[in-house]
Amino acid sequence: MKKYCFGVDVGGTSIKIGLFTVKGELLDKWEIKTRKENSGARILEDIAQSIRKKMDERSLCADDISGVGMGVPGPVLEDGTVTVCVNLGWSNRNPSRELGQMLNIPVKCANDANTAAYGEMWRGGAKGYSNVVAITLGTGVGGGVILGGKIISGNHGLAGELGHITVNPEESEFCNCGNRGCLEQYASATGVVRVAKKKLREHDAPSVLRGKEAHLSAKMVFDAAKAGDALAMEAIDTLGYYLGLVMSFVTLTVDPDVFVIGGGVSRAGEILLEVSQKHYDRFIRISSHYAELRLARLGNDAGIYGAARMTIE
Amino acid sequence: MKKYCFGVDVGGTSIKIGLFTVKGELLDKWEIKTRKENSGARILEDIAQSIRKKMDERSLCADDISGVGMGVPGPVLEDGTVTVCVNLGWSNRNPSRELGQMLNIPVKCANDANTAAYGEMWRGGAKGYSNVVAITLGTGVGGGVILGGKIISGNHGLAGELGHITVNPEESEFCNCGNRGCLEQYASATGVVRVAKKKLREHDAPSVLRGKEAHLSAKMVFDAAKAGDALAMEAIDTLGYYLGLVMSFVTLTVDPDVFVIGGGVSRAGEILLEVSQKHYDRFIRISSHYAELRLARLGNDAGIYGAARMTIE
Repeated sequence: MKKYCFGVDVGGTSIKIGLFTVKGELLDKWEIKTRKENSGARILEDIAQSIRKKMDERSLCADDISGVGMGVPGPVLEDGTVTVCVNLGWSNRNPSRELGQMLNIPVKCANDANTAAYGEMWRGGAKGYSNVVAITLGTGVGGGVILGGKIISGNHGLAGELGHITVNPEESEFCNCGNRGCLEQYASATGVVRVAKKKLREHDAPSVLRGKEAHLSAKMVFDAAKAGDALAMEAIDTLGYYLGLVMSFVTLTVDPDVFVIGGGVSRAGEILLEVSQKHYDRFIRISSHYAELRLARLGNDAGIYGAARMTIE
Repeated sequence: MKKYCFGVDVGGTSIKIGLFTVKGELLDKWEIKTRKENSGARILEDIAQSIRKKMDERSLCADDISGVGMGVPGPVLEDGTVTVCVNLGWSNRNPSRELGQMLNIPVKCANDANTAAYGEMWRGGAKGYSNVVAITLGTGVGGGVILGGKIISGNHGLAGELGHITVNPEESEFCNCGNRGCLEQYASATGVVRVAKKKLREHDAPSVLRGKEAHLSAKMVFDAAKAGDALAMEAIDTLGYYLGLVMSFVTLTVDPDVFVIGGGVSRAGEILLEVSQKHYDRFIRISSHYAELRLARLGNDAGIYGAARMTIE
């Protein structure tokens, strides 16, 4: 009986690794540096070495381990191929096969937004559900779609790219992706700041945010809204409007049990759910029953939880 | 070895039934009337009787039949429950269990938009693919989502309800569902006519459609557009714009292999694909690889094909 598994979350700066029991208990977690030199050639060997060291430390052998799961910051095809991963310098490789050969342990690989969603399903805000859509509001906006307990990665690795859904075709500013009016432009941390600054420029209503434009953060906008600042509340309402709209799109496509909202912006808490629920409700009229909204619970550990979970059938 | 299966497509006016080989050859098809009296109490018995008669005719016994698949015009939950089906008068019943008991043959039931999608995957425009989204442009707009060869019905039966995705929150007219700005208001047969009439009212540009408002059809608008009528082309472009937008939403959620466009409006042919492709391309900038667009091929038989396919593991 294999009792343990590893979850690896490969980021552009550091790699998080966790040792779990197959029941979902996190026994140990640590980080190593991401060495991106030479198109990230050393990354997998570094991970293998770190896992071998931990196994020695704890006197574990390959037979004790159900597998290693790994989340990477880019699209992963069904067969494990990573065509391009800009943040790591990788192109056209199969990291799960390569790491599997180094460790002689089965390795599975998926996009990091998907593994985070999987983690929230296993032990976080969506525990007990099997149809889960996770939306991560961070510097950008990411998403992960799980149906019937299975991560949906899509034929071209685009499944769950909810941040780049066009919510406002009339937008004049460009998103990083080259499109205009993506969800990310309104609902990411940078998006909230962008919208608040725009409102400060375009209106002369009083606001506690005035004069603070140069160092404005999403947290400052949320704090001002919670304290009753009308202009800040408008910026938050814009986020809720577009997030509610996208959740209605997703609902009328795959109709999940639950949406889990995570990422730095979700630290704002209940106010985020309230403002999103209001608009979500208004965009779905054909039914009075649809998915619940919940806050994510695992924070930055969601990725290692979900990666570890992938190793268990 | 079970060689045959039945596909049933239950509509509000008539019930289509097909006898198929398990390899997908349609051997026979016929229709019976939908008797909606007494909350549709006789519908299942009528189907059972018609299937028994056909089995007698062809000297088939239950052992020859892999099963009966049935599409119904309303949401069907995972366990086969139909909570409400307005068009048939049904509420809170399990038609697959009931029909299965009558026939002593396994019966599976799904929403008719989903069975149509499944049919197109088996033997129609999406043959050979396993991640398929079908969009039916008829009197209304329906959709069916198939991932990994499996129909996605969703936790509340709302999966694939693409016609009620909000594409224009600024719309002043109401959709049948009570929302404003649903895809159905622009891309259904009635939607195309509505948009063309609105353009005729609001602009005084010359058009061959002028004076024909009272008996305008979607076909007339498409024919005028094909003949070079600028105002008709604008109405078709509006359809393509919103359909392209919704396909971009669906792509960034589940990333299918292919979209199959069917229903009466799709008889317009290639012009429909061209005008939709143009806008679909423009709304996806994060990748140059995404789903193909294709026309449906099975017409009104898609439902019986897909229903029959459900009986085969």
